[in-house]
Amino acid sequence: MISTRLTRLLDIQHPIISAPMASAAGGALAAAVSNAGGLGLIGGAYPNPDWIEQEFGAAGNAPVGCGFITWNLAEALQRQPDILDAVLARSPKALFLSFGDPAPYAPKIHEAGSVLICQVQNMDHAKQALDAGAQVIVAQGAEAGGHGRRRATMTLVPEVADHLAAHAPDVVLCAAGGIADGRGLAAALMLGAEGVVVGSRLWASQEALVHPNMHQAALAAGGDDTIRSSVMDIARKLNWPDGYTARVLKNAFTDKWHGDLPGLLADAEAESARWMAAWQSGDTTTANTFVGEVAGLINDIQPAAAIIENMVAEAEGRLQVYA
Amino acid sequence: MISTRLTRLLDIQHPIISAPMASAAGGALAAAVSNAGGLGLIGGAYPNPDWIEQEFGAAGNAPVGCGFITWNLAEALQRQPDILDAVLARSPKALFLSFGDPAPYAPKIHEAGSVLICQVQNMDHAKQALDAGAQVIVAQGAEAGGHGRRRATMTLVPEVADHLAAHAPDVVLCAAGGIADGRGLAAALMLGAEGVVVGSRLWASQEALVHPNMHQAALAAGGDDTIRSSVMDIARKLNWPDGYTARVLKNAFTDKWHGDLPGLLADAEAESARWMAAWQSGDTTTANTFVGEVAGLINDIQPAAAIIENMVAEAEGRLQVYA
Repeated sequence: MISTRLTRLLDIQHPIISAPMASAAGGALAAAVSNAGGLGLIGGAYPNPDWIEQEFGAAGNAPVGCGFITWNLAEALQRQPDILDAVLARSPKALFLSFGDPAPYAPKIHEAGSVLICQVQNMDHAKQALDAGAQVIVAQGAEAGGHGRRRATMTLVPEVADHLAAHAPDVVLCAAGGIADGRGLAAALMLGAEGVVVGSRLWASQEALVHPNMHQAALAAGGDDTIRSSVMDIARKLNWPDGYTARVLKNAFTDKWHGDLPGLLADAEAESARWMAAWQSGDTTTANTFVGEVAGLINDIQPAAAIIENMVAEAEGRLQVYA
Repeated sequence: MISTRLTRLLDIQHPIISAPMASAAGGALAAAVSNAGGLGLIGGAYPNPDWIEQEFGAAGNAPVGCGFITWNLAEALQRQPDILDAVLARSPKALFLSFGDPAPYAPKIHEAGSVLICQVQNMDHAKQALDAGAQVIVAQGAEAGGHGRRRATMTLVPEVADHLAAHAPDVVLCAAGGIADGRGLAAALMLGAEGVVVGSRLWASQEALVHPNMHQAALAAGGDDTIRSSVMDIARKLNWPDGYTARVLKNAFTDKWHGDLPGLLADAEAESARWMAAWQSGDTTTANTFVGEVAGLINDIQPAAAIIENMVAEAEGRLQVYA
């Protein structure tokens, strides 16, 4: 048992939160993680209210939470003003916000009694999250799969830890990015985190909503086969703010366009259609597989519960080695 | 006492090696680190035989080693064929090679009885180092100060560890990049490393050969104030191979040229002269301060021995917390 302020705050058994990965983190994965003793989050990114309802349904009675892409939530609320209210009406255990200023949404989340978890990618974000009243701050490094920025987990976590110790000692810190097994969990604890957010390793689970071809591509890949790029966002016509890129497996699409964004933009309609069709069909040479540098540490697609159990057992073992 | 295969192989007290930082890691720093129980390395990069001789002299009788930039050593040997022999004649405890294929130099180093330490930045490099007969492999992440590539310490260390476990179980693994205190040392051990290579934190020591203005700039900076770039290498007319960049503090020079390398190349003579003059005078708005993302974790310039002692004591404490 690894008991931390995170496990006590959330009343969970293991200090592990599943990342609310867009499209991949549905109710089945979130429920499996919560039922295994962690906190599972439904990926409300690019929110589609019907999908979110469906996935909360799929989670059944498991105590799960939900995550949003903050800048995108602002756009979504223009079209569907009740999208956040509908999620909060489900009494989610936690609301996870990343990639934008959480301040506009924090009061409503606090009022609903959900724990506000804010993921940050640099020190300015961390201060913004504290100003908004985050109860948990997740320091996310660039080795993570999917969206993020440039700082590494190894340095961002202790730098945020020092800031919290000086300015907000009651706020709980988690680490994200590069954590796929018990070694990563134990390392994150040593850096000063009291929990971890796991994306790629739980993306590579049986419960994740991922095309089997993408799972296979990740199993065949190593950490050197990933790249941070914007070409997928251009292909998907997503207006990510400056400074954010996503880590994916390199493929023919990134080989062609990563170094030629103007060329891609000039041919955006056709290339977007081609990428989206490949995403649907699981053609991983054109559509990109969203997985982090830990691709090199993932060798099988397991049930989420086994992943959590193995991670905790391995971390407990590592933490004894030098004690 | 943190005893590992590294401390036993090198017969040292603490699993800490000082990075052979070009120009900053002279004999005084190397000796201080070795005398404090680690292994100190003189920075033989861009080798100047007179400087190396002088710094071995400054190290006195302390058992130190020496490091080279591998691709640059090849060029230097064209001009000064005895540069490696002269260092090996000093019976250095270890020879540290990074940034290039170590194979051409490995036999001579083994013959001299020095431990061959190879720093690697990706899996291909790791396999190359094993082929050359490296006894210690250092997995270096991109959060490091100075030169490197793109992988993060958090994922590269366990991925190399898995490779060594399967293919070269006698080779000892160290971590570099993002390690500035006991938290980083403890985290590296959890990831599977049996020692660490510390650059920036020992660069910020009283014994390092660093302009005081650069120390002050690093103390004032956080991790978000660094950038990986090539502009300093263009300014210094160094022919670093593709794929390598150096992490430094952002300043007016990187602001101006990082996004406009063709512009810098077009004005290379004048800009090079300006940068080199600024380096000499300690003008940190033009010359760049070579420090890693751990700039945000460094708050003082201490004697190297105090840095090592604090790092070990803090790591020992962290390693008890969850045991």
